Amino acid sequence: MTKTAAIIGGGVIGGGWAARFLLNGWNVQVFDPDPEAERKIGEVMTNARHALPMLYDCALPKEGTLRFCTTIGEAVTGADWIQESVSERLELKHKVFAEVQAANPDTPIGSSTSGFKPSELQQGAQDAGKIMVTHPFNPVYLLPLIEVVPSEATDSAALDVASDVLTSVGLYPLRVRKEIDAHIADRFLEAVWREALWLVKDGIATTEEIDNAIRYGFGIRWAQMGLFETYRVAGGEAGMRHFMAQFGPALKWPWTKLMDVPEFTDELVDLIADQSDAQSGHLSIRELERKRDNNLIAMMRALKQQGNAAGALILDHQKALKSLPEADNPMVSTRRTIPVDWTDINGHMNEGRYGQLFSDAAEEVMAYVGADEAYIAGGLSYFTVETTVKYITETHAGEEVMVQTRVTQGEGKKLRCFHEMKRASDGELLASCDQLMLHVSLETRRTCAPADHVKAKVEALAALHATE
Amino acid sequence: MTKTAAIIGGGVIGGGWAARFLLNGWNVQVFDPDPEAERKIGEVMTNARHALPMLYDCALPKEGTLRFCTTIGEAVTGADWIQESVSERLELKHKVFAEVQAANPDTPIGSSTSGFKPSELQQGAQDAGKIMVTHPFNPVYLLPLIEVVPSEATDSAALDVASDVLTSVGLYPLRVRKEIDAHIADRFLEAVWREALWLVKDGIATTEEIDNAIRYGFGIRWAQMGLFETYRVAGGEAGMRHFMAQFGPALKWPWTKLMDVPEFTDELVDLIADQSDAQSGHLSIRELERKRDNNLIAMMRALKQQGNAAGALILDHQKALKSLPEADNPMVSTRRTIPVDWTDINGHMNEGRYGQLFSDAAEEVMAYVGADEAYIAGGLSYFTVETTVKYITETHAGEEVMVQTRVTQGEGKKLRCFHEMKRASDGELLASCDQLMLHVSLETRRTCAPADHVKAKVEALAALHATE
Repeated sequence: MTKTAAIIGGGVIGGGWAARFLLNGWNVQVFDPDPEAERKIGEVMTNARHALPMLYDCALPKEGTLRFCTTIGEAVTGADWIQESVSERLELKHKVFAEVQAANPDTPIGSSTSGFKPSELQQGAQDAGKIMVTHPFNPVYLLPLIEVVPSEATDSAALDVASDVLTSVGLYPLRVRKEIDAHIADRFLEAVWREALWLVKDGIATTEEIDNAIRYGFGIRWAQMGLFETYRVAGGEAGMRHFMAQFGPALKWPWTKLMDVPEFTDELVDLIADQSDAQSGHLSIRELERKRDNNLIAMMRALKQQGNAAGALILDHQKALKSLPEADNPMVSTRRTIPVDWTDINGHMNEGRYGQLFSDAAEEVMAYVGADEAYIAGGLSYFTVETTVKYITETHAGEEVMVQTRVTQGEGKKLRCFHEMKRASDGELLASCDQLMLHVSLETRRTCAPADHVKAKVEALAALHATE
Repeated sequence: MTKTAAIIGGGVIGGGWAARFLLNGWNVQVFDPDPEAERKIGEVMTNARHALPMLYDCALPKEGTLRFCTTIGEAVTGADWIQESVSERLELKHKVFAEVQAANPDTPIGSSTSGFKPSELQQGAQDAGKIMVTHPFNPVYLLPLIEVVPSEATDSAALDVASDVLTSVGLYPLRVRKEIDAHIADRFLEAVWREALWLVKDGIATTEEIDNAIRYGFGIRWAQMGLFETYRVAGGEAGMRHFMAQFGPALKWPWTKLMDVPEFTDELVDLIADQSDAQSGHLSIRELERKRDNNLIAMMRALKQQGNAAGALILDHQKALKSLPEADNPMVSTRRTIPVDWTDINGHMNEGRYGQLFSDAAEEVMAYVGADEAYIAGGLSYFTVETTVKYITETHAGEEVMVQTRVTQGEGKKLRCFHEMKRASDGELLASCDQLMLHVSLETRRTCAPADHVKAKVEALAALHATE
C-alpha cells in the first residue's frame, strides 16, 4: 500500500521532506499558502532527483504523486505522517496543529523546528501526545540525521511510528533524551557560529580562511567519527581518560570567547557578507547547491564502500530496497542511476565503471543462484577470470540504466554471463560484456565445484537462457 | 637534492610529521629522549605507509632515510626545516629553541603547539624571527591543514620557507592573520568540546549519540564546505545577509551553555570515559586508527574525484609529483598503490578497478603522445571502444603495482594498447588488458583523425614497441 505524507509548509526544508518521501515511493500532499510554493518545491525536487538515487546501487521505488492542497485539512486527510515546517513563530505553529488535529486526530505530527521545545509546541493542543520535534538537516533529501525530541507528554506509540516512518525513507532518527533549547546539533552549530563571528570581527581570519580551517582539518575527521570517538583515538592506548586528563585544564583557559557574544550590528553583517561574496560570489546558489550535493554524494558513497558512518545507514536502507532478480530471459540483473563519482576527464562514465556495473550485475546473478553474502561468508564464491567489454554509446552521471543478463555457460565450475547495459528511458544499448567466472574456494583461493543447490540453479538458469 | 627535516619530539604528532616528510622523499633526523620513541614512530610509520600513498594515483617519491639522533644539535644539523613537537611546557620549548639555534641558527623552526602563541614561544630566543607556530591536525600524515601563525617578530623570509616546505609535502599552510590563544580550529573544537561535556553531564545525550548527531548531519556538510559557505547556500538566493538576518536574533537565545564551563570533576571524567567505552571499547585503538584512516582516505579520494575541498589540494600535489612516462619498450605507464576503496565483497580488488587502472594507464600514454588535458580541452580525445581483461592473480589494497604498456596498433584513428599489470615488489603478472581506442572529436562525439603531432608520436611509439 502506497503511504501518504502531509507536508505543511513548503520552503527549502518542507520541500526537502517532500522530496525524501516522494523518491521513496510515498505520495505527498502539500499545504503552503505561498503562491511560490509549487516553484520552490519544484526546484528542491530537481536537486533531489539528481542526488538521492545516486546514493544507492539499485533503483529507488517508483516516485510517488505530489499534490498541492488548498487547506491544511485536505493535506492531512489520509496521511500516515504529518511534517510541519512553517515559519518559526510559536502562535503560527499552534494554529497549524489545531487545524491538523481537527481534521486528522490520529496521525503523529513531527515539527522541523530548531527554535522550540516539544513542550512549547504542545501548549493548548487537542492531543499533545501526537506532537514531537523531528528536526532535519539541510539538504533533507541527502543528510540522514533527524533529531527526534519528545516531551514527557508525547505518546510512546507516536514515537514508534516516527521511528518506523523515518527509517523506512532512509533517515536516522536520533532520540534526544530530554528536551533542551536547540536540541543537540544546533547547540554545536551555535557555539561555532558565535566563535566564528568573533574571529572575523577581530580580524583573525576571513570567512574563507575559517571554512578552510574546518574542511581541511577537523571537518573531514568529524564526518566519519564525530567528536568523542576521534578524541578516543587521539588519546592513544590510554583512551578517553588520558585524553580528558590532557585537555581538562584547557577548560579554564581563554580558548574560546564564548563567555561573551559579539554584538549583532550592521557592520558585522556587512563584514561577513562581503567576505562571503569575495569567497563564493562567483558561483550562483544553484551552482553551490549542486557542488555541495555532488561532494556529499561522493563522500557518502565512499563511506558506504567502507561500510562506516553515514555509509552504513545507506547500506541498511539499500538492503530494504533491494530484491532478488526474477528468472526472466534475459534477466534484469541491475537497475540503477549512474552516480557523479563515476565520470572521468572526458566528462562521461569511465570505462572502469562499466566493469564495476557488470560486476555488480554478476553479483545479483550470483545472489539469485544462491552464491550470496552468506555463501561467500561460508568460504565459497565466484571469481571473474576474463571480461570483454564493448563500449557502444557514451553514458553520463544521472542516467538510469539497466543490465539484462543471460547465462551463456553454466556447467561445472564455469559461470559465463553475457550482459547488455541499456538506458532505462529508451532501451538504447550502451555497452555489452562477456564475462567468464570460475567457482572458487576462498580458503585455497583455487577453483572447486559449487555446492549442489548453486549448481542446480546455475544449470536451470543456463537452460532458460538457452531458449530463444 | 634530497632535503632533510629535523623532528624534535617524536610522539603521535612528531611521528606524523616524520611520516609526512619521509613519504615525500625527505630524510628525517629525529631527537626524542624517550626510550620508546623509535617504537612509537615505527607505529605511526606503519599507519602512514598504509594510508598516504593511497591518496595519489601515482607513486610517491622513494622514501627518505629515518635517523635517530642523541642530541638536538645533531638532529638539526643540515636540516632544511625544523619541527618542534615536544610537551606543552613553555620553559621546555624555550630550552629546545635555545639548543636548536645554537647548532643551526639559519633554519626556520615551526612549533606544533596548540597552547602557546608565537610571541610566547619567542621569549628569550637567540633569533625570534625564525620561530613560528605550524600547528597540524591528527593524523598529520593524512590531513592537510597546518595553521601557520607568526608573531610580529617572525621574519617574512622564514614564513616564505614554511609555505614552500609545507606545500611541497602536500600540506595546506593557512596563514593566521593575528596571533590568538588556540589559533583558529582549536577554538571551535574547544567550544564544541565544552558544549558536549554539558550535554553528557546533563543527560541530554550519550557520547555515541553526540557523535552520531555530528557525523550524520553537519559533520559531513563541513567536510566539504566548512561553515560560512554552507550557510551561504542555506540562505538561498538572498545569500549570507538573509541567513544572518534569520539567525542573528538567536545570538541572544540560550542556544549554548557556553556562558559557563562545566566543572572538571572525577565524576564527569568517569561518565564520559564509561560512555566512550560502551561506544567504542570493542575496538582497539589500532583498529580505530585503521578505520579512521580508511574512512578519511575514501572520503578524500571522493573529494579528489570531484576536484573540490581537500581533494583539490591532493590533485595539486599530485600534479607536482607526476612526470610523463619514458619512451621505453615496454613503457611503464603507471605505478601506484591500490587504495582501500577499490576492494569488493570478495576482499580483493574489484574487477571494475582493473579497468580503471588500465584506463589511467591509457591516459598516461595519451599524455605522452600529446593527447593531454590541454588537447582534450581543445576538443579532441581518444575514447575506448573495446577492452579484454584477463584476471590472473588477486590484488589487494595496499599493494604497489605498475602497468607496462605496448602500443600494438597506432595508425589513423586507432590507438591499441596491450597493458600488463604487475606487482611492483616481485614483478608477478596480475592482469592484462587489450584496449582499443579511437580518436574522436568531443564536439561531434564521432571519430576523426588526430592532430599531426599526436599522429607522429603515436606512430613512433608503435614502431618502438614493434621491436623485440
